[in-house]
Amino acid sequence: MTTEISIDEMRAAHKRTALFIHNTPMMKSEKIDEKVGANVLFKCEHLQKTGSFKARGALNSAILAKEQNAKGVIAHSSGNHGQALAWSAQKIGLPCTIVVPKNAPNSKVEGMKEYNAEIVLCEPTMASRESVCSELGEKRDMFYVDPHNCVSMINGHASLVFEVLEQAGDKIDSIFLSVGGGGFAASVAYSIGILRPDIEVYLVEPEEKQLSNLLENGVQCNVDTLNTMADGVRVAHVGSLCEPILKKYCTRTVVSVKEDEIKEALKLIWTRMKQRIEPTAALAFAGVLYHKPAHIKNPLVILCGGNVDTNYIIN
Amino acid sequence: MTTEISIDEMRAAHKRTALFIHNTPMMKSEKIDEKVGANVLFKCEHLQKTGSFKARGALNSAILAKEQNAKGVIAHSSGNHGQALAWSAQKIGLPCTIVVPKNAPNSKVEGMKEYNAEIVLCEPTMASRESVCSELGEKRDMFYVDPHNCVSMINGHASLVFEVLEQAGDKIDSIFLSVGGGGFAASVAYSIGILRPDIEVYLVEPEEKQLSNLLENGVQCNVDTLNTMADGVRVAHVGSLCEPILKKYCTRTVVSVKEDEIKEALKLIWTRMKQRIEPTAALAFAGVLYHKPAHIKNPLVILCGGNVDTNYIIN
Repeated sequence: MTTEISIDEMRAAHKRTALFIHNTPMMKSEKIDEKVGANVLFKCEHLQKTGSFKARGALNSAILAKEQNAKGVIAHSSGNHGQALAWSAQKIGLPCTIVVPKNAPNSKVEGMKEYNAEIVLCEPTMASRESVCSELGEKRDMFYVDPHNCVSMINGHASLVFEVLEQAGDKIDSIFLSVGGGGFAASVAYSIGILRPDIEVYLVEPEEKQLSNLLENGVQCNVDTLNTMADGVRVAHVGSLCEPILKKYCTRTVVSVKEDEIKEALKLIWTRMKQRIEPTAALAFAGVLYHKPAHIKNPLVILCGGNVDTNYIIN
Repeated sequence: MTTEISIDEMRAAHKRTALFIHNTPMMKSEKIDEKVGANVLFKCEHLQKTGSFKARGALNSAILAKEQNAKGVIAHSSGNHGQALAWSAQKIGLPCTIVVPKNAPNSKVEGMKEYNAEIVLCEPTMASRESVCSELGEKRDMFYVDPHNCVSMINGHASLVFEVLEQAGDKIDSIFLSVGGGGFAASVAYSIGILRPDIEVYLVEPEEKQLSNLLENGVQCNVDTLNTMADGVRVAHVGSLCEPILKKYCTRTVVSVKEDEIKEALKLIWTRMKQRIEPTAALAFAGVLYHKPAHIKNPLVILCGGNVDTNYIIN
């Protein structure tokens, strides 16, 4: 597989995946602009295939795996990554196995099955997920696609940046995104850092994550899993491929938000924009709504996903 | 005020309101096309100003009232109509009074207040709503805007049809919409009947309404209020201005759906399209999902609104 994170590989991934990936629309809301006191643009990745940006990197990974004659792709996931990889593999006719912890929400597992992935259940621990995954992957000669710490995922996600620059490159001064394992954040920070260093990339985190302490002082967060309603970014640590990129480009642009702020941000987007985004997408908007630096006038918020159960309520 | 429903008046209303009304986008979903077995387009009126198509007719009415030197506009409403009229009046600097039944949902009343409407509470009966409204309207020389049976509302709503024909006139063979008091239905049926009689207009109703029995046999529904989750179309009877239009154009195109069908349609749009529409908007889609006539290949569904409380759940 590709071993390098680079703008050339990102461009190649953009071209490689363009046939199946949505160029997602931008939205805005007059009422939200008033509330924030700035011109806020939203990039609608909840309208992406499989309901999250993950489809971008997953499709790139699956195509590269096929080109290199892998017998299939495999990953462990309880959510969006599994659905995105299952969809990608189905699109290009490659077998796909997802290792799923027994306690995963049924709706997500159903989503994976719908795209014909084979589901293998494991114990709900990271150790079990990883060991089952690597054992099976080796036995079956399937390519393992890590959701965060994976070159083909990171290169693949950058198609979003090419779209954004074409749609609104002259209208934005910053990008706000939710940060979890760091793959998407690294992809955006790296490509923007090279193509448009005048645009600031803000990483919005649940406050428990304390990513600044890692990027500035090298101190790791002392838990593995964050206690946050933003379930897509509960993984506390960023991948080893991502960390140096984030250090280089985002050391002073981490924004920590409280749970109540995520909640209010989510309510606003549900009621004002009528978009059923997931809490993790609201996290990025909470960064703008409550912590936008005064010099930022034209922020772009990436709404990363919309996979939320029908009866989810905002508590 | 204008006393005539006509294509010329509809064109004039379209021009008159274009500055403030959104030309709402169309959406589609591959998964939904598969499920329905047709190419389904959605016209996103939940993304209209104030979250429903009502803004179209309401703004037309408010502008005409101002041109004719009325001191303001007045209506009774517990929901979308009140918000739409309040917004319209505020946009053009006209006073607005909304008579609201005491049991109206707080979120809707807050919406009206946000647009600076004066709220007058009344008893939660139609008699009280109407008497308070007509008394106040006369005393204050305010123009009364009925949500359904009102020429300026009906002419105003037709701006949607001009947009649809421009966006997708060559791509659709039918339009499915939710029918309640009949003002919107009359507007679409009349304008399509004249401009594009080859496009069929389907009126989707909760089954208790039995609109076919009225249009074919002259038999009125024997209740005033329907027991349906589609709260925007609980009014059982269509207005006297609307009835002859619907008789002429839609006698054989009424579609009755069950509550469970509305529920499933709502779930699909929430989960697949990530659009937080209200149950009344799902009603129109339920007509396509469960009752599409076999000869219809390219239906357009109008998603009429998206005003649903944050913690609404699909039971």
